[in-house]
Amino acid sequence: MTEELQRKTTVVNRWITDLAPVGGGYHGSIFEAVNYSVKAGGKRIRPVLSLAVCEMLGGSEEDVMPFACAIEFIHTYSLIHDDLPCMDDDDLRRGLPTSHKKFGEALALLAGDALLNHAFEVMSNAHVPSGIAVEMIKTVSHAGGIWGMIGGQVIDMKGADTYEELVTLYRMKTGALITAAGQIGVIAAKSKDESVFSAVSAYTDNLGIAFQIRDDLLDVLGDEQLLGKRVGHDEATGKRTFVSSLGIDGARMALEEYTQNAKKSLSVFGERAAFLSALADYLLQREH
Amino acid sequence: MTEELQRKTTVVNRWITDLAPVGGGYHGSIFEAVNYSVKAGGKRIRPVLSLAVCEMLGGSEEDVMPFACAIEFIHTYSLIHDDLPCMDDDDLRRGLPTSHKKFGEALALLAGDALLNHAFEVMSNAHVPSGIAVEMIKTVSHAGGIWGMIGGQVIDMKGADTYEELVTLYRMKTGALITAAGQIGVIAAKSKDESVFSAVSAYTDNLGIAFQIRDDLLDVLGDEQLLGKRVGHDEATGKRTFVSSLGIDGARMALEEYTQNAKKSLSVFGERAAFLSALADYLLQREH
Repeated sequence: MTEELQRKTTVVNRWITDLAPVGGGYHGSIFEAVNYSVKAGGKRIRPVLSLAVCEMLGGSEEDVMPFACAIEFIHTYSLIHDDLPCMDDDDLRRGLPTSHKKFGEALALLAGDALLNHAFEVMSNAHVPSGIAVEMIKTVSHAGGIWGMIGGQVIDMKGADTYEELVTLYRMKTGALITAAGQIGVIAAKSKDESVFSAVSAYTDNLGIAFQIRDDLLDVLGDEQLLGKRVGHDEATGKRTFVSSLGIDGARMALEEYTQNAKKSLSVFGERAAFLSALADYLLQREH
Repeated sequence: MTEELQRKTTVVNRWITDLAPVGGGYHGSIFEAVNYSVKAGGKRIRPVLSLAVCEMLGGSEEDVMPFACAIEFIHTYSLIHDDLPCMDDDDLRRGLPTSHKKFGEALALLAGDALLNHAFEVMSNAHVPSGIAVEMIKTVSHAGGIWGMIGGQVIDMKGADTYEELVTLYRMKTGALITAAGQIGVIAAKSKDESVFSAVSAYTDNLGIAFQIRDDLLDVLGDEQLLGKRVGHDEATGKRTFVSSLGIDGARMALEEYTQNAKKSLSVFGERAAFLSALADYLLQREH
């Protein structure tokens, strides 16, 4: 598992480097700001998922990676904007100064805008049949937008009032883009089988919520050094999380349950899903 | 001219209302914020241009309007983000409180993000052949991104050091999206003639720079009531403009020259370009 994860992460990082915007001239500073955040690392879970799903279904790296990188660019822009003073006001991300700490708020704002826009430029330039490109752009824009990630950020900002709303929040804020990452893999592999699409979507939907519950636990139990960002943020702001709703043990049980459900969704793929199944376990135990 | 402009603006506003995101629930506030800015009015120059070019070339309203609206959504998001305290810190836009004054900075930031994302969702859902949709998304994302509008905003932020850089700034910040608006019209009309694409691009490129010079003049000579925003901003911030570079008379001459060049680019279309030609004159004289 770890070896295969490393191999896939290396592939992903090579593509990200290739597809990140490069330039200079009068507006050279924006390229610097964008690449600072894009190359700051991170787990690359979303593009790894896309690649893993696509490979499991017999698709090619070339067909999936432009779209997988687009999702990572969107994820990265959302972190830059989330860190801004008017949002979470964070100084550290992945152990480095956040974009606005490094480049100032205005350039950080524009770097986020540029990355979101760039994600779509990359997808429209992918060397795939145009029907596939449009389906990809439809999937990604829906997941990243007002009915997905951005909608989830809005709920997060005001705070979830009930447990039900909390699950909706996680499904939108974190789950939507992770689910899209899986679906991208199915579309790239040109699988027409509805049950494949459903199974992958169920896997990533459960994985996305599990991922966010693990974040809640790490905010209470995690190591600031390992995480590369401050902990105790949720308790300090008094916002509802799985931990505040269910307690630490309850949140652990929920994490276990969503992870099991994710793995069960893979049963239709049998042995071919070994990596995706191991990835769910890996994320369950992650320390950052 | 005025009658035809009104007819086209009415068509544009109907499409914008139809294609703006509508929703409610836990994240209802973001729909309110997005629609507040989208429906605050504005001249709708960009989508009117797309529609006019498409109609001149025999294309249909249905084929062009989803993309024309996408450009207007991108223009609107850029205004929301430009008005934020970390950028121009403006309180008024089109005579109304700016988005962050009305909804707070965090929701304004997300409303801008949502609109940019929504532009691409709308384009990917347009009822046109997928090859056309991909070409549209390529054109719009390139014009709105780091090599176009956003790049121009970055130059604007630091200020242009030379006259040459100022022209580059205007060409990117304002011109790129206006040029794309014209190109959208050509693509929607399925015109394969390279000279048509070049002529329309030359027209909109000149028009975009002329538009920005008129803005410079209005910032010095304009009426705050008519403009719906404060004037004297450029002088207060000491930034280089056409007026500070060439004086009021010099800026007027430059405006006249770019407008004439725009109109000359239309000569290949003869009488069919009457509206576009009149539009250039109209924009030359606009008071807001």
